[in-house]
Amino acid sequence: MAHRAELIAVGTEILLGSIVNTDAQILSEKLAELGIDVLYHTVVGDNPERLRAALELARKRVDVIITTGGLGPTYDDLTKQTICETFGRKNVLHPELEQWLRDLFAARGRTMTENNLQQAYLPENCTVFHNENGTAPGCAFCEGGVHVLMLPGPPHECALMFRTGAEPYLRALSQDVIVSHTLRIYGKGESEVEMLLRERIEKMTNPTVAPYAKPDECMLRVTAKAANREAAEALLRPAVDEILSVVGKWVYGVDVDNLESVCLDALKRRGATLATAESCTGGLLAKRLTDVPGASAAFRGGVVSYTNGVKAGVLNVPQALLDEHGAVSEPAARAMAEGARAVLGADYALSVTGVAGPDADDRGNPVGLVYIALAAPDGTECRTCRFGRRTREHIRQQAANTAFDLLRRRLE
Amino acid sequence: MAHRAELIAVGTEILLGSIVNTDAQILSEKLAELGIDVLYHTVVGDNPERLRAALELARKRVDVIITTGGLGPTYDDLTKQTICETFGRKNVLHPELEQWLRDLFAARGRTMTENNLQQAYLPENCTVFHNENGTAPGCAFCEGGVHVLMLPGPPHECALMFRTGAEPYLRALSQDVIVSHTLRIYGKGESEVEMLLRERIEKMTNPTVAPYAKPDECMLRVTAKAANREAAEALLRPAVDEILSVVGKWVYGVDVDNLESVCLDALKRRGATLATAESCTGGLLAKRLTDVPGASAAFRGGVVSYTNGVKAGVLNVPQALLDEHGAVSEPAARAMAEGARAVLGADYALSVTGVAGPDADDRGNPVGLVYIALAAPDGTECRTCRFGRRTREHIRQQAANTAFDLLRRRLE
Repeated sequence: MAHRAELIAVGTEILLGSIVNTDAQILSEKLAELGIDVLYHTVVGDNPERLRAALELARKRVDVIITTGGLGPTYDDLTKQTICETFGRKNVLHPELEQWLRDLFAARGRTMTENNLQQAYLPENCTVFHNENGTAPGCAFCEGGVHVLMLPGPPHECALMFRTGAEPYLRALSQDVIVSHTLRIYGKGESEVEMLLRERIEKMTNPTVAPYAKPDECMLRVTAKAANREAAEALLRPAVDEILSVVGKWVYGVDVDNLESVCLDALKRRGATLATAESCTGGLLAKRLTDVPGASAAFRGGVVSYTNGVKAGVLNVPQALLDEHGAVSEPAARAMAEGARAVLGADYALSVTGVAGPDADDRGNPVGLVYIALAAPDGTECRTCRFGRRTREHIRQQAANTAFDLLRRRLE
Repeated sequence: MAHRAELIAVGTEILLGSIVNTDAQILSEKLAELGIDVLYHTVVGDNPERLRAALELARKRVDVIITTGGLGPTYDDLTKQTICETFGRKNVLHPELEQWLRDLFAARGRTMTENNLQQAYLPENCTVFHNENGTAPGCAFCEGGVHVLMLPGPPHECALMFRTGAEPYLRALSQDVIVSHTLRIYGKGESEVEMLLRERIEKMTNPTVAPYAKPDECMLRVTAKAANREAAEALLRPAVDEILSVVGKWVYGVDVDNLESVCLDALKRRGATLATAESCTGGLLAKRLTDVPGASAAFRGGVVSYTNGVKAGVLNVPQALLDEHGAVSEPAARAMAEGARAVLGADYALSVTGVAGPDADDRGNPVGLVYIALAAPDGTECRTCRFGRRTREHIRQQAANTAFDLLRRRLE
């Protein structure tokens, strides 16, 4: 029988609307992959009575409770004490965590104030989850058939600790293994993809297929449950092939991280290099490329030419061209890409120039108009995109995605 | 006495992690402004028994219940029926809403299928909230001293209906307003800040002070409750001054967005310009600067010199210097900043070179070692940072923060 879970976030800042409870979204998605049904999300403030009442309620209605937040060093971090009281466990100092904390502070050349020691206390006889992104460890224990897991609140700490600590703990509760493959799609919306696949998806039971909408792309997760990994993979293979036969031309990768890592892999396979020239994206392409470890094997560098002076002076875009067509134009995009390719000495160069908003530019080009060019050994191509009146962030990310998609298709 | 609220979101897609419960964040922030204490967020699936149990619990512990979602035309939209059953109200057809729906569909040239009529049903004797962004109206009623408000799930519908319908309804219930100021701190951890302020924080009741940890910085929110904004501000002023007298030297702004926007504002005030030269941050500084609308008034552009060829060829860093000291060195950082300042024609230039990981570089420089330089009209300074073995993302963000903090302090 499937486990039933409740997520309890502890944090007055969530109840004040200062932050969004993204942990709940991240964990819910992961738990669904593990075949655990999430029945409730609950948020309470930094208030021990209300947290205690929420825990008492949760232990009656689910068998997996995951708390997020309230594990830090300050006086309002009371998740551990409250859980220990509720479940009748001692909150004890874990000497190896104390040593880890002291070493961590020493390595950073910082003094460890006494309140930090609170983080080395965890319920006795628990499974410790180490925190590779922060100072508050998490943990899990089982009491009366109910598994209680505590994770830190900051999303980057929570997500990493789930992967390294909580996920293995939860996987061990079930006999079956659950294996997923993720097909990543760019250039086709979630609802269109779902329409194309609906009948097939509805017929499937194991594996199952779930579409997810991401901000500027979408993905399909195909998940199978079986006695072992090999059996699960045998179930997955024909299902993935069937989906690819329908929507394959928009799928840029299976179990890949993102468009930029697909580009970098393709460049490395060819022994080719890349440069960027960015106006409205202002460094976003370069930033996303260099988010990928090992990017330096293919990415030489880039120029953020946020002003015409830099376009002309550094990228050698002719001033006459800028005067005639303006910086937001196809000729400018082409000249920027070709300039970056030459100046930075790369095989390929991507350029982006456009209007990210919030206002139209001084030549009256509307918000959302973006030119994207790719200079390659066999010539330059340019795409004109109209992303419409969306947010600055959306237009910039969409422009970067389109640029990477252009490069990916050329390298295929 | 202040009203106490619970937000109940109804939607299996939230429990599956397909969407984030942003309605809860939007409503919480608005309710705080109205002086209504939000004590709980709850999410249940499209399941009438569990929704009913959540409503029964909520009516015992709060006096304002706001539901989001489940008002639409499909079979899983069961919020209204369940609320009517729980609170003993009839769900009745509102003829004026039926007419409005029929007109709406006619105006869009679409056929109104019968299930849409379900949206014209609302509890009898309720206050109707019109939906200007969709087809599902919301409403409010009071039963046994508990106010129940129903809003639609899609965030743009929910937010607008709150403003036009729910907010006026709730304002009529409450006397107090709540006003907050946020002090943003860089260079001092949450626990150290709290240690310095603990006694003062514990003594305060109105305003209250709450510390929050952000990924690489922290903030203090000072919140006062009073009869009107002026009275709240009068309470806040001395509290903010007192906090600044203790931790002011790490506070980079009050009610500001982030370090980069503080830098850009300071540059604009001086009529000065900025350029960047980035190695390990790979465009992150430029990206963060250009996330800020209007950055072009001060930011000229940058060079992402991810390879030595680009450092030498574009930034004019002498090859001999790179050969002798390596790219990860103080001389290289200084030469990069000075090169960017000259090549990009800016008053100030920031440079970053270091090892973001996951591996040490080929000269044996450890992960986390980063040199950050600032070239200014009155000379160049350089900071050596050791961020330790953290994630690549963390080291890069921390390097960017340190660079912006260096500039901010120089411009002060």
